[in-house]
Amino acid sequence: MHVKKIRVVEDALDANNTIARANRTDFDRAGVTVVNFMSSPGAGKTTLLERALERLDHEIRLGVLEGDVQGSLDADRLAHHHAPVVQINTDPGFGGECHLDANMVRSALPSLPLDEIDLLIVENVGNLVCPAEFRIGEDARVMASAVTEGEDKPLKYPLMFRACDFVLVNKIDLLPHLDFDMDAFLANLEAVHPGVPYALVSARTGEGLDAWFDWLRDVAVRDREAA
Amino acid sequence: MHVKKIRVVEDALDANNTIARANRTDFDRAGVTVVNFMSSPGAGKTTLLERALERLDHEIRLGVLEGDVQGSLDADRLAHHHAPVVQINTDPGFGGECHLDANMVRSALPSLPLDEIDLLIVENVGNLVCPAEFRIGEDARVMASAVTEGEDKPLKYPLMFRACDFVLVNKIDLLPHLDFDMDAFLANLEAVHPGVPYALVSARTGEGLDAWFDWLRDVAVRDREAA
Repeated sequence: MHVKKIRVVEDALDANNTIARANRTDFDRAGVTVVNFMSSPGAGKTTLLERALERLDHEIRLGVLEGDVQGSLDADRLAHHHAPVVQINTDPGFGGECHLDANMVRSALPSLPLDEIDLLIVENVGNLVCPAEFRIGEDARVMASAVTEGEDKPLKYPLMFRACDFVLVNKIDLLPHLDFDMDAFLANLEAVHPGVPYALVSARTGEGLDAWFDWLRDVAVRDREAA
Repeated sequence: MHVKKIRVVEDALDANNTIARANRTDFDRAGVTVVNFMSSPGAGKTTLLERALERLDHEIRLGVLEGDVQGSLDADRLAHHHAPVVQINTDPGFGGECHLDANMVRSALPSLPLDEIDLLIVENVGNLVCPAEFRIGEDARVMASAVTEGEDKPLKYPLMFRACDFVLVNKIDLLPHLDFDMDAFLANLEAVHPGVPYALVSARTGEGLDAWFDWLRDVAVRDREAA
């Protein structure tokens, strides 16, 4: 029974990787750089996305794929920006699938005007475990970790923090009101993912967000030069 | 392929329910009431547990089962209390299983001194999706939702909010520093789970925690009277 279970899991991840590679090929062909954006529920991904859409509007042609268990609240929040926004609901999956997988993203491709997008940001389901397991065809991965969640999170969810190319430490405007030990958080981050770049930001006040915009610019340019 | 996938999922949930019933029978036989405690990562479950261990220490014989992907940080935090604390790591599962299931809890039973426990609180993995799917043999379910996560969470993770018998709206000490609309949150909660009892609390300042202690007392007594 145990062996069977592991076999099913391996098959599922193999199938996912195959579809992720097909997505990547399609994105590359269309000249679209893809960022997989992950975090806990409520860490501020959508607000960080809004700030990016406002700031990079005239520089990079952005697109957004919104992954949610149910509803289109986040897509609605972003709808007034110029960028095309497509919603994926994971609800028909495993009683509310807890992550996006390559096939869900693939099923959204026909709804995305890929030839009008340079940089596609995929907002994953809020979850610090499973999204890190499933490649979707992305070029880079970024996560937001809110200081309100506590400094132990890298140690408790190491796979997620290890899977990322960049970490946004968000909600720093609340630091004066929290018992959050930033040095301990950064030491924990360094312990699970040595050398990973990070930025201390507040999506609410705008503090530190230039590092987020610079990272997005950099990813988009790097991918174009590699192509 | 789609049919096969759903079949695997149904089989997994059926198998889980069978083991959950066996756990429940064992808990009932030992006179142990079991509470499944769920939330996002960093919503304050462990601190809320600590407050309960401090307050109910001389009234109810408490025990704790700590579920984490990796490590024993939370179990270590609770170790100085009188209550027996047992750690389960979900790590050997699906690359860091994102929830506790009935079999993981079952495997911990031999480590738990059931005859010395009246009320066992199981701290689930921080995740608003999958823990709601997997019964573990509990008598009641409670979740913590931190105001720092935003007022839209009931709408975005409806299964979790619907699965709970009680909701702790935590971190209210931070309300003066947030753009959190409590009326909207409570309306969203009522929309997905009409009539569910809730309490506004701060594990940090102690505000409102009597409702949490009362709920735990009540669950323990109710289960004993039903037995």
